[in-house]
Amino acid sequence: MTLLERFHDHDIRALSRLITFVENREEGFRQLLGRLYPKTGGALRIGVTGPPGAGKSTLVNGLTKELLREGRTIGIIAVDPTSPFTGGALLGDRVRMNELPSDGRVFFRSMATRGATGGLAAATDNVAVLYDAYGFDFVLIETVGVGQVEMDIINACDVVVVVIVPESGDAIQMLKAGLTEIADVFCINKSDRPGAQRLAADLKYTLELRGSSQPAASTARFAHTLLPCAGHEHGHKPAVVQTEATTGKNVDALHRAIGEFIKRGHETSTFEQRRRQRLCAKITEILNVRFQSEFVNHVAGEQDILGEIDNIIAGQTNPYEVGDRLYRRFREQ
Amino acid sequence: MTLLERFHDHDIRALSRLITFVENREEGFRQLLGRLYPKTGGALRIGVTGPPGAGKSTLVNGLTKELLREGRTIGIIAVDPTSPFTGGALLGDRVRMNELPSDGRVFFRSMATRGATGGLAAATDNVAVLYDAYGFDFVLIETVGVGQVEMDIINACDVVVVVIVPESGDAIQMLKAGLTEIADVFCINKSDRPGAQRLAADLKYTLELRGSSQPAASTARFAHTLLPCAGHEHGHKPAVVQTEATTGKNVDALHRAIGEFIKRGHETSTFEQRRRQRLCAKITEILNVRFQSEFVNHVAGEQDILGEIDNIIAGQTNPYEVGDRLYRRFREQ
Repeated sequence: MTLLERFHDHDIRALSRLITFVENREEGFRQLLGRLYPKTGGALRIGVTGPPGAGKSTLVNGLTKELLREGRTIGIIAVDPTSPFTGGALLGDRVRMNELPSDGRVFFRSMATRGATGGLAAATDNVAVLYDAYGFDFVLIETVGVGQVEMDIINACDVVVVVIVPESGDAIQMLKAGLTEIADVFCINKSDRPGAQRLAADLKYTLELRGSSQPAASTARFAHTLLPCAGHEHGHKPAVVQTEATTGKNVDALHRAIGEFIKRGHETSTFEQRRRQRLCAKITEILNVRFQSEFVNHVAGEQDILGEIDNIIAGQTNPYEVGDRLYRRFREQ
Repeated sequence: MTLLERFHDHDIRALSRLITFVENREEGFRQLLGRLYPKTGGALRIGVTGPPGAGKSTLVNGLTKELLREGRTIGIIAVDPTSPFTGGALLGDRVRMNELPSDGRVFFRSMATRGATGGLAAATDNVAVLYDAYGFDFVLIETVGVGQVEMDIINACDVVVVVIVPESGDAIQMLKAGLTEIADVFCINKSDRPGAQRLAADLKYTLELRGSSQPAASTARFAHTLLPCAGHEHGHKPAVVQTEATTGKNVDALHRAIGEFIKRGHETSTFEQRRRQRLCAKITEILNVRFQSEFVNHVAGEQDILGEIDNIIAGQTNPYEVGDRLYRRFREQ
């Protein structure tokens, strides 16, 4: 059997080898992903994000156990930008995997390759496509919600869980930080700490206010996409759940809240729209990569652009003139 | 006198009107910015970022007072993604401006336009260009460090101050979140709270370890740029300062730490490199906008792309095939 046949036959080692193949961007990885696309669309992507130390890993493990109990299969991607020299990611993986069954119903991979060629967001999406084509029911993606890359990843999910702690600030600050825009479910973890009740009440009240005055706009999910590519989603008021992941308290409630969002998402066209947005972002990315590589290879190389920048710094031109001129050269070529 | 002459004559109302002109992207705003570019390069951009509730606004006001005391002039941009219906930003502006002199040595503008056409990062950069050309010594940019847009803004600064609080997590978590990569100065605010001393010591130790093993890579500052466009910056170990912004305690120490970073930045080529990266990102953005608008207007409109997405969902094609085909059509056109 070929590797791909073994993959379709649910051989978990074949999955693991194809992930490595795609991660390393070996020759033919795009063709492979292209061939697998028709097999995708069966998995839902759940993104779990939040500040460092909010307890995301423990929550993701807890959620995985709840989903396994329902008979579901799960592929986990932990986007962990730990610098290579700490070795933190690998050590963490082993500890985490020991808690989960090794019978093929759950698979775990961490992406510890910040700054990798091709981009972490694209690499994460590629692994999610592999999980989906392999046949997992859910793809759980865990990121630290700080950088631009992590936001691209979270925006590509079907369900977004924002994890905060009682010390994370008040509801108005969440609103100002844009968290109420990205969250489908809010999880206040470490809810044994003081202030949890108040933050939950505060947040529910703020979401209630928002819910009546403006539906969540889906058009801003991708900042760099070619098209707005979808209308507005049906206004949804995120649930607010209080958990204590370390003791497991209320993780079942979080699971239920996600389940309710999924039920509504299937009734409305939420997931279909989000999948369209994701595909639009993917096409945009593929086109941009083509444009930029052709541009750099055939119109203006690194030295040309550095020269133009010198001219701007010398006050002889400006970025708009340079952009106009280079773009015309590209089109006349 | 024309508006532009009054602007060059340091008429603050002319500045204010040009900002509005550029923010609204009125006809000719690109030409205006292009003409002003030769006047830029004199101002340093200081970015202040951190989680909601860390006390950034109070710190920025405190820093502004320190800079005024030194005889410097300051343009402030508060990137405040408050939804329009709360009115929070405007109210906040008035309160904040009452604390600062109104003699033209400091100017304040908030950008409360999340999801605006053209993008918040581009709008912020445009206002920074106006401030620079107007002649301010410093541009202070305050953002909530959550989304992708905010990271684009912070990455375009000469000096990055990351504000955290004792509850933000431990040093390893900061490292994992990528904060040690973007920070030039760490500010632990609300340092009267328990855990501040320990976090400071922890962070210094972690930065010491990192400092010896890898220099800060500058190439990853912009994820969407055309070229790496610069070498590596001289490895710099961020200072760690503990402040209590509300009482003003140690804000002078933060000011000194920033001053020391600036001194070193002038001695090495840090600011020159960062300015080059910023200009490279600007040129890339201008080219991408041209490419995408030409693409959508002349190659494949919204309906075409939505049709391709339908075909992908129906399993008849995949994003790579679509990207290839559309790009070829663009080039053959």
